[in-house]
Amino acid sequence: MYSIRTDLAVEARELYKGREIPGVSVEEKHLEGIKVTKVKILNEEGEKAMGKPVGDYITIEAPGLIERDLDLEEEVAKVLADIIKEIANLTENTQVLVVGLGNWNVTPDALGPRVVSNIVVTRHLKEYAPQQFGDEIRSVSAISPGVLGITGIETAEILKGVVDRIKPDLIITIDALASRRLARLSTTIQISNTGISPGSGIGNRRLSITEQSLGIPVIAIGVPTVVDAVTIANDTIEYLTEELLKQTKEESPFYEVLKNMSQQEKYSLIQEVLTPYVHNLVVTPKEVDLLVKNISSIISRGINLALQPGLTEKEMNQLLH
Amino acid sequence: MYSIRTDLAVEARELYKGREIPGVSVEEKHLEGIKVTKVKILNEEGEKAMGKPVGDYITIEAPGLIERDLDLEEEVAKVLADIIKEIANLTENTQVLVVGLGNWNVTPDALGPRVVSNIVVTRHLKEYAPQQFGDEIRSVSAISPGVLGITGIETAEILKGVVDRIKPDLIITIDALASRRLARLSTTIQISNTGISPGSGIGNRRLSITEQSLGIPVIAIGVPTVVDAVTIANDTIEYLTEELLKQTKEESPFYEVLKNMSQQEKYSLIQEVLTPYVHNLVVTPKEVDLLVKNISSIISRGINLALQPGLTEKEMNQLLH
Amino acid sequence: MYSIRTDLAVEARELYKGREIPGVSVEEKHLEGIKVTKVKILNEEGEKAMGKPVGDYITIEAPGLIERDLDLEEEVAKVLADIIKEIANLTENTQVLVVGLGNWNVTPDALGPRVVSNIVVTRHLKEYAPQQFGDEIRSVSAISPGVLGITGIETAEILKGVVDRIKPDLIITIDALASRRLARLSTTIQISNTGISPGSGIGNRRLSITEQSLGIPVIAIGVPTVVDAVTIANDTIEYLTEELLKQTKEESPFYEVLKNMSQQEKYSLIQEVLTPYVHNLVVTPKEVDLLVKNISSIISRGINLALQPGLTEKEMNQLLH
Amino acid sequence: MYSIRTDLAVEARELYKGREIPGVSVEEKHLEGIKVTKVKILNEEGEKAMGKPVGDYITIEAPGLIERDLDLEEEVAKVLADIIKEIANLTENTQVLVVGLGNWNVTPDALGPRVVSNIVVTRHLKEYAPQQFGDEIRSVSAISPGVLGITGIETAEILKGVVDRIKPDLIITIDALASRRLARLSTTIQISNTGISPGSGIGNRRLSITEQSLGIPVIAIGVPTVVDAVTIANDTIEYLTEELLKQTKEESPFYEVLKNMSQQEKYSLIQEVLTPYVHNLVVTPKEVDLLVKNISSIISRGINLALQPGLTEKEMNQLLH
Repeated sequence: MYSIRTDLAVEARELYKGREIPGVSVEEKHLEGIKVTKVKILNEEGEKAMGKPVGDYITIEAPGLIERDLDLEEEVAKVLADIIKEIANLTENTQVLVVGLGNWNVTPDALGPRVVSNIVVTRHLKEYAPQQFGDEIRSVSAISPGVLGITGIETAEILKGVVDRIKPDLIITIDALASRRLARLSTTIQISNTGISPGSGIGNRRLSITEQSLGIPVIAIGVPTVVDAVTIANDTIEYLTEELLKQTKEESPFYEVLKNMSQQEKYSLIQEVLTPYVHNLVVTPKEVDLLVKNISSIISRGINLALQPGLTEKEMNQLLH
Repeated sequence: MYSIRTDLAVEARELYKGREIPGVSVEEKHLEGIKVTKVKILNEEGEKAMGKPVGDYITIEAPGLIERDLDLEEEVAKVLADIIKEIANLTENTQVLVVGLGNWNVTPDALGPRVVSNIVVTRHLKEYAPQQFGDEIRSVSAISPGVLGITGIETAEILKGVVDRIKPDLIITIDALASRRLARLSTTIQISNTGISPGSGIGNRRLSITEQSLGIPVIAIGVPTVVDAVTIANDTIEYLTEELLKQTKEESPFYEVLKNMSQQEKYSLIQEVLTPYVHNLVVTPKEVDLLVKNISSIISRGINLALQPGLTEKEMNQLLH
Repeated sequence: MYSIRTDLAVEARELYKGREIPGVSVEEKHLEGIKVTKVKILNEEGEKAMGKPVGDYITIEAPGLIERDLDLEEEVAKVLADIIKEIANLTENTQVLVVGLGNWNVTPDALGPRVVSNIVVTRHLKEYAPQQFGDEIRSVSAISPGVLGITGIETAEILKGVVDRIKPDLIITIDALASRRLARLSTTIQISNTGISPGSGIGNRRLSITEQSLGIPVIAIGVPTVVDAVTIANDTIEYLTEELLKQTKEESPFYEVLKNMSQQEKYSLIQEVLTPYVHNLVVTPKEVDLLVKNISSIISRGINLALQPGLTEKEMNQLLH
Repeated sequence: MYSIRTDLAVEARELYKGREIPGVSVEEKHLEGIKVTKVKILNEEGEKAMGKPVGDYITIEAPGLIERDLDLEEEVAKVLADIIKEIANLTENTQVLVVGLGNWNVTPDALGPRVVSNIVVTRHLKEYAPQQFGDEIRSVSAISPGVLGITGIETAEILKGVVDRIKPDLIITIDALASRRLARLSTTIQISNTGISPGSGIGNRRLSITEQSLGIPVIAIGVPTVVDAVTIANDTIEYLTEELLKQTKEESPFYEVLKNMSQQEKYSLIQEVLTPYVHNLVVTPKEVDLLVKNISSIISRGINLALQPGLTEKEMNQLLH
């Protein structure tokens, strides 16, 4: 068996094609060029329906980002900052650890480490020169722990170790996601207060990074940077069978053949097409390097705005380097 | 209309499924873990059948390269060196310009520039210190001219300009190709004496880089590093319809529907699946960065062995840096 | 013998310590945080005095750039744009080729290629879609030809070849320079209309890149990114002997010793200190990677502003990628 | 006041110019092209004399590495492997955590992270597939924790956290060092069993990374990649005053001036030469990027040989990627 992967709550919801989902509430807001959707999974029923844990999933969709519109980029950063502030219940003294998940050697998975490299990091300044860096600066630290394949250590274990030592009040993770839709690549941002579940993201983690496992709230920011090739192949099958069904009379025996084509049959087909890589293939626009670069600078901007409201742009820039 | 792209002569030939192709001769050789196929397009008839100009297309296929077997890598480099020597009719005094085609900012297109960065470059040494660097060293120069989108200049124009100035006897180009088959990615190398035609390679060039346009022979080395997403979608359709045809009786009206599904219909379907990127989407293994790195070091090794038979490994290494 | 290298006209002039220099006129302008000095070498006498060819050398000095002040960065970009426009006599139809000199693999020498990667390149757009990209866009192309050591070809030869093919009206080169003063690193920009002489820049070119050699005017933009270690050692000697001279009576025989210490003696000393690298050593701040990144984005911004006054910021950004 | 920095025990010893040092034993071994020196600091007296803690400091010096001799490189890797095995008392079951110290964005400080990227990492394999990866493989994990300036967290804190979680038996750190001598850059390797003291290395750490602080033995491998500019300036003064002293009669009053020039005076001079960067300036060969690349591959090879004696070269390569 196989499943079409999506890490996005808005996409899990789309599978319901507009029908109401039990245990799930949805709220939409439209700004200029930006759509903000808040999916709340309210209870166990909602968890089952959506395949995701109880919690809030807010999605920013800004298709215009594909065109490098600087005004829109700044606008998205501000919307992101507002959402972070709200979902994180930030107070003045909340100490934050920003975590860039993913593998910096693999372009579409390098989103997290890239964002981290542009976060205004202040924890050491406040610690070593508290008079100079006072209350207008929040204590922020940041790490990119790498991935299991290059460290031999589960990311969750590294984080648990670091959290136990430096005791932040909140973690914000940034991760590259897989989407079902090409149009979302580098134009959609999901913010949730549920942390990271095993198996999500491009990196296939085995342990969860959540309030339960780490003892402090975890805000997870994710951006789709790839579509699984399995998704593309599967969608092609879906579209084609739909097309064929339209042309076939319902009483035709062939109608039954199409209708009853099992998941297993579909998967065998996909496997044949995608051999020898199958589950390891991603579909990306050729210019993925650039797309990841742009969206990661928007996200680090948004996080900096959320975490350091007391700093001017100039001060931020000076601290950045 | 659309066409499934392949830059490989062996794949163009596969479309004939074993049937003889008029105007084309094929020869295969099997070494341990390496298959060498020589496709000769002999005349206009062959050109039409294959969609490629008259000339020799030699392909090295070594699926084992995917497993990082150092012995196999060295073996492939040597086979490549032998093929280059043969196809290029190298004499002692042949001055060679090695050209890395492609965009160094786009991982799967960076193959050419990466190879060039490991070529033993000697032209300046021979020119400025002819006594010290004598006949045992061949004059080799190397450039990575960039791509139209980042220079505003057709690669062929830059090369024409450089060739007119420095007057080499032979050009060897290295380019990333698109394949029809995932199994070929970074494991197949094509060497041809026909140069580069417009539209081939990942970079979509508009002018040819050939003996005709440059005035000197052009050996083109290419390695598939991506499969077009259109190919994956198309293959899925092909496999599915084939599967369905098997289950359908020939007299069934549905059989006709499937048989007669037009290219246009297929393409509309593919377009729907791949919107908004369609022709700009590539399918790659996640670890493409690594695959490109490995195969490019094999190719630069092969070229260095072919061009500098008079140098020991040690001397090569010292000249390399 | 040895000489302390400077590629900057303002530094050559400083050696005269305020005295008037025959054949040289100097003009200074002070803006907020920016000093602009225009050194005009008027005739052969001036050439000899300054060790540089007849022409205009305009220097922008903005020490504040070291502090990442975004407003100052934008201001410097605008001042640079104005100077380029003036010195280049740009008309609407002037077609420009921007050339990034230097080696992209060597951080302090990578300035030129980095600038080029952010130039708005339009030549191909105007050529292939003249109706769509009209008179409000200037034809600009851009290349980074590499350095002799990695291509085996003199940069001047590559440029001559390209210029002969694509026939631009003007070349703008960008190059990393050596300075005598650490305070100038990444905070000083020199613009001249004399092109590039052999031996200047970090890359040690042997052929000139000038109007005389290429047939079209060459504007050279340079930024110091390193100080030769020889300069540091030499300065230490100078300062020390000066200090000692102050403490020594003029009639003392030792005074004579110090006064008459020959260049040769000084150089032997320096050689001893800097063995085994001597002429290949550079002094840089640890954070040179960052400094080069910042100043190169200022310069590409300045060039884009100068060359494309008809484009809005938004249009520039869209064309950039 | 100031001090000339050296992180190398062999250099601290050189200051004694051959005299015996109380509390310190020295042993030298000469192989072909490689000199191995073992400095043992035996007691408090030795600590004071050398400015380094009690322990073993073994230095591999191979000046020939500058010439990219592949045989010598392999030989050095093997010598390094033997030293690691001996100094670490490795048994079959020793679980090792390899730590790449330093900032990957700053070329000469990127040595540690570069080495880590080529370590054969196996901990996760042994944990998740113990039958498949058995006793012939040692459990090795690896991280590059970043530096205080980019994480806001002391490296020692991150390591303490990780060690508490994954409980390795031994840590091996790799770090870029400052040397007093240019000839050592990328050709000298120091291995010690004392861990890392505050202030050592290029990165200026404040907390120690030692058996005392982490609870498990720490082997520190270091390679000089820069010389402080202060050292160069200071050496120039030393050489010059020595030269002048030779030319001055002892009864001359000037002799006294030179003899008595205080550290403070020297430092003021140096400060004047190196303003505005002073303590932040490094001297490197232009080709430092390349030097760091070469030496880091030698070190990762040496570590892999030491830690995984049960693996063939082929198996190592396959595990590496």
